[in-house]
Amino acid sequence: MLRAEQNELLTRTAPQAPMGAMFRRYWIPALLAEELSEPDGSPVRVQLLSERLIAFRDTEGRLGLVDEFCAHRRVSLWFGRNEQCGLRCAYHGWKYDVTGQCTELPSEPESSGVRARIRLKSYPLVERGGVLWTYMGPPEHQPALPEYEFALVPAEQSYVSKRLQYCNWLQALEGGIDSSHVSWLHGDALRSDPLMQGSRGNQYNMADVMPVFEVADQPAGLFIGVRRNAEPGTCYWRITPWCMPSFTMIPPRGHHPVHGHFWIPIDDESCWAWSFDYHPTRALTAAELAAMRDGKGIHTRTMPGTYIPVANRDNDYLMDRAAQRSGATYSGIAGIAMQDASLQESMGPIVDRSAEHLTMTDAGIVAARDRLMRAARALAEKGVPPPGVDPKTHAVRSAAVILPSGQAFREGARDALRARANIPPSSV
Amino acid sequence: MLRAEQNELLTRTAPQAPMGAMFRRYWIPALLAEELSEPDGSPVRVQLLSERLIAFRDTEGRLGLVDEFCAHRRVSLWFGRNEQCGLRCAYHGWKYDVTGQCTELPSEPESSGVRARIRLKSYPLVERGGVLWTYMGPPEHQPALPEYEFALVPAEQSYVSKRLQYCNWLQALEGGIDSSHVSWLHGDALRSDPLMQGSRGNQYNMADVMPVFEVADQPAGLFIGVRRNAEPGTCYWRITPWCMPSFTMIPPRGHHPVHGHFWIPIDDESCWAWSFDYHPTRALTAAELAAMRDGKGIHTRTMPGTYIPVANRDNDYLMDRAAQRSGATYSGIAGIAMQDASLQESMGPIVDRSAEHLTMTDAGIVAARDRLMRAARALAEKGVPPPGVDPKTHAVRSAAVILPSGQAFREGARDALRARANIPPSSV
Amino acid sequence: MLRAEQNELLTRTAPQAPMGAMFRRYWIPALLAEELSEPDGSPVRVQLLSERLIAFRDTEGRLGLVDEFCAHRRVSLWFGRNEQCGLRCAYHGWKYDVTGQCTELPSEPESSGVRARIRLKSYPLVERGGVLWTYMGPPEHQPALPEYEFALVPAEQSYVSKRLQYCNWLQALEGGIDSSHVSWLHGDALRSDPLMQGSRGNQYNMADVMPVFEVADQPAGLFIGVRRNAEPGTCYWRITPWCMPSFTMIPPRGHHPVHGHFWIPIDDESCWAWSFDYHPTRALTAAELAAMRDGKGIHTRTMPGTYIPVANRDNDYLMDRAAQRSGATYSGIAGIAMQDASLQESMGPIVDRSAEHLTMTDAGIVAARDRLMRAARALAEKGVPPPGVDPKTHAVRSAAVILPSGQAFREGARDALRARANIPPSSV
Repeated sequence: MLRAEQNELLTRTAPQAPMGAMFRRYWIPALLAEELSEPDGSPVRVQLLSERLIAFRDTEGRLGLVDEFCAHRRVSLWFGRNEQCGLRCAYHGWKYDVTGQCTELPSEPESSGVRARIRLKSYPLVERGGVLWTYMGPPEHQPALPEYEFALVPAEQSYVSKRLQYCNWLQALEGGIDSSHVSWLHGDALRSDPLMQGSRGNQYNMADVMPVFEVADQPAGLFIGVRRNAEPGTCYWRITPWCMPSFTMIPPRGHHPVHGHFWIPIDDESCWAWSFDYHPTRALTAAELAAMRDGKGIHTRTMPGTYIPVANRDNDYLMDRAAQRSGATYSGIAGIAMQDASLQESMGPIVDRSAEHLTMTDAGIVAARDRLMRAARALAEKGVPPPGVDPKTHAVRSAAVILPSGQAFREGARDALRARANIPPSSV
Repeated sequence: MLRAEQNELLTRTAPQAPMGAMFRRYWIPALLAEELSEPDGSPVRVQLLSERLIAFRDTEGRLGLVDEFCAHRRVSLWFGRNEQCGLRCAYHGWKYDVTGQCTELPSEPESSGVRARIRLKSYPLVERGGVLWTYMGPPEHQPALPEYEFALVPAEQSYVSKRLQYCNWLQALEGGIDSSHVSWLHGDALRSDPLMQGSRGNQYNMADVMPVFEVADQPAGLFIGVRRNAEPGTCYWRITPWCMPSFTMIPPRGHHPVHGHFWIPIDDESCWAWSFDYHPTRALTAAELAAMRDGKGIHTRTMPGTYIPVANRDNDYLMDRAAQRSGATYSGIAGIAMQDASLQESMGPIVDRSAEHLTMTDAGIVAARDRLMRAARALAEKGVPPPGVDPKTHAVRSAAVILPSGQAFREGARDALRARANIPPSSV
Repeated sequence: MLRAEQNELLTRTAPQAPMGAMFRRYWIPALLAEELSEPDGSPVRVQLLSERLIAFRDTEGRLGLVDEFCAHRRVSLWFGRNEQCGLRCAYHGWKYDVTGQCTELPSEPESSGVRARIRLKSYPLVERGGVLWTYMGPPEHQPALPEYEFALVPAEQSYVSKRLQYCNWLQALEGGIDSSHVSWLHGDALRSDPLMQGSRGNQYNMADVMPVFEVADQPAGLFIGVRRNAEPGTCYWRITPWCMPSFTMIPPRGHHPVHGHFWIPIDDESCWAWSFDYHPTRALTAAELAAMRDGKGIHTRTMPGTYIPVANRDNDYLMDRAAQRSGATYSGIAGIAMQDASLQESMGPIVDRSAEHLTMTDAGIVAARDRLMRAARALAEKGVPPPGVDPKTHAVRSAAVILPSGQAFREGARDALRARANIPPSSV
């Protein structure tokens, strides 16, 4: 349970908000690489952390992410022409390069010096791992590029998708670090989803509904370990790394790829749910890729030309009460992604956390909120950089392991939780 | 004409508002019985008096009306599974019985005592007369069940429907106690509607457009009598009982059933228009039932799977100017229900009553507002229970009678205004 | 660039706002004549300057523009019956004439005097030039009818249309007096639009992208002259009259008709874009009229039964990136009207003018804002009537002329800028 002002602190990410300042210290995903694949292609509207921006790729292939609105009279550059090495406003022909610098201002003589002083707000936009990343904070604090393992493996080893979610980013993140709901909400997926089914761990997952949470600090955030009974004398551990502010990885299952998410604020009442699958040591198979594209696993089908899920709040997520009754799906909603999103959106755009009743299985959520609030305050009050900014801290993995009863996961899974080249994930 | 603060007092019914406290002293209709007909059927979202609730019928047929949101992390229980004697949240499997008591909290050991302390806000839900009634006030003040005559007669003698109306409840109620608009807006219905046409009274109704209003107190609220000229030396009286807070009955016409309404706030800008027909001494005929289901009389056709009228504000109520011009309908809108709703909604969600100009034929409206404000204030300031809470006060009837000129309706129609077993309505 | 309070002053036109008071000193277009063509036809909802009104034509052909809501209980008179010389409310039969006077109040005896005291707010509504004009200000200040040339020529010489625009009126006006964007945004239209193409002036328009603005006061507002290079020793001048508050005329092109606009606030976030074509000395040709009706020139195609453009914000104005790339259209949007509207709406409902960077080619915009603010303040503070109220000041024309280098347009185009009977426009 939180006080109202704590909820405000955690959920608001516009430029002036403390959590907004904190988010702006990280590289965050802005677009799928496929959205800006062609030089001189169509510019794309982007809203992140309550700022409206426009992204484009110029003639030389350079990427730009700049204020959506022309400096002159504030018309949207979405209507602009992506011309020779610059985006030209359709109204009066002002042209900007990928840094936001005005490079042509046709109605003014160059000698006036006006053009040179016109520069749009702009942020770096860099491709890595199929994602275009941006950094929206103070240039002097810009860290090196992110080194999450999924983004560093060869392209054939990973797959990334995104979908629009109609709620505050924190509700989505909290679902991502909540290992205890899987046995309930996603029980059907553990049995039947082609990207989830068939591991031995799934049986432990379903059999023990009273898991024990243990949370441990790590440089970028937390490891959230969840222990369930396995064979006598042993425990089944599922361990979720959370890297601040909102990068999470789902513990793997048997031979399947590893999954993960980013939850990125669009504004305070909507976010992008980024979803990736990767395998550290092998290419994804054709069957796996086909399943991902078909919305299986943690992905979902979206409406053509958009990233809006086919099943969404406007159609009650295609609730199927017959499937719910038969148990074909637990909640009546199909697919892990929309099972989560439907419930998270049902809380309202920003849930009232003063009305919660948390229990021991919410230990990961409680700890993550605590770390977020502490980091946001330390940054606001003392300028302390938040954890997880340094890419060296990104080399973590999720893991699903069997350990002897009594052994702490930080010890028994120490190596399993590090990203190590050419070493497969620890996956039961 | 009201002052702005009086309008606020009358129209706001959320938990903290004085009128909200007053509404919470009555049993009010929550659902049609048909909406929760099956044990373990689908749960139903209900919003009443600005509170979001979920209704369900359990395995044993018991009815529950509880907070829509799980106590744990506030996800909607609409996605829940209606299982063995309880509704189970789809997120983490918390299960609640019809009283809101948490009966299973799988992730906590029972010995912790956590589960026993978790209880959702809940209200009683009781079937009577085809309606599921609830009482949302202080348990210690819960009255006996309502005894409106329509709800006590055998099932074959009554029919109930409901529809969504996009305006504050009071605008709808004021239409219900406004006998003077019938000659205008509903003139076509008096001529042609199968549930209205053909009575002698209709001729008086249409012939005298300057009716005289007389309002009399009764224990539950008011009798609003409207006198029109009939044959020399006689008057035609139409008398509408209003039982607080918003139960009204339309005076009957010839052999037709008696009609009535409840206007129940969903929030401050929308309400349920409940509409019933019944006959105190005979079954409704197959033709009458067919007409009601077809949206005749005071009922209306709604979109499949919803209680939203087919003719609504989004389609200008299917305005037919040709029918308006020809007089086939007076306003161009078809059907009594939508004739009323279209005008009431056209006032805006909450009409500005400081801009009205009331006349003598608004005497019923003026008196009802006065009683509502007095009762709300007496409850808020002195804890005085409002009129109409005691079911003994519900045994009233509407009546349409011919009385000698000069006789007061309270005297001449005294018996006609009481619900009496096996005695047909006084209907001219 | 403006300060926030200046932007408020300029953009707000509800009754209490200073700019609202100023707008209310002028006759403004309310409806197309075709919208109220028949005696006793359907009443029409009209919103102007944030006031909701209803317009109707009575049995005798008289026009009325009155409060949308009945004085009695505030239901919309849109549902009313347009009967014998009056609009009758559908609720209780109150009837109003075109002046807003209640002429029948059936439920009250005439002797009570109530009816005579009931009068709706009403404004004059007068047809001139295919437009129904209204004056919403103090009756004692009502000026003579407008005498814009387009409205005085014989009907066969003019054509008028309107469309809904989703932004504040000032954004639209500023587009109308911004001659510098034509070379960019509308370049394709100058080449191919049947109502624009083929004049010698167009070549100058396209060739010189660094036009020089000169602004001169005139009794009703401004002349905004824009000079471009023509043959050696000569200049091509395009001169736009702006008559306060929002009447503009586009300089003509060759043999084509002259175009103009009114931008009339509906509320503070939407406006009517009125568009007219006329020729001072000849009838419009059948081909010209066909092109106008087809949405060419400054007109646009609207959805049947509405004045909402087919290409609008909900469909991204039917953006065609292939046409943008090929240059078939400059911005990818088809048609001058929606090229302008798409950009003006993209600024948001009320653009933040504190974030602009104006240049020399915005001289007309800067001057117009200055005149508007001065006039609104002079009216509010000292009761000074604003410029352009007197119809004698309306006899202006736009002009496109070649002048010797060095000659001021106020001198060289003095006659060209006056409306003169039987004299064609000065059009290069």
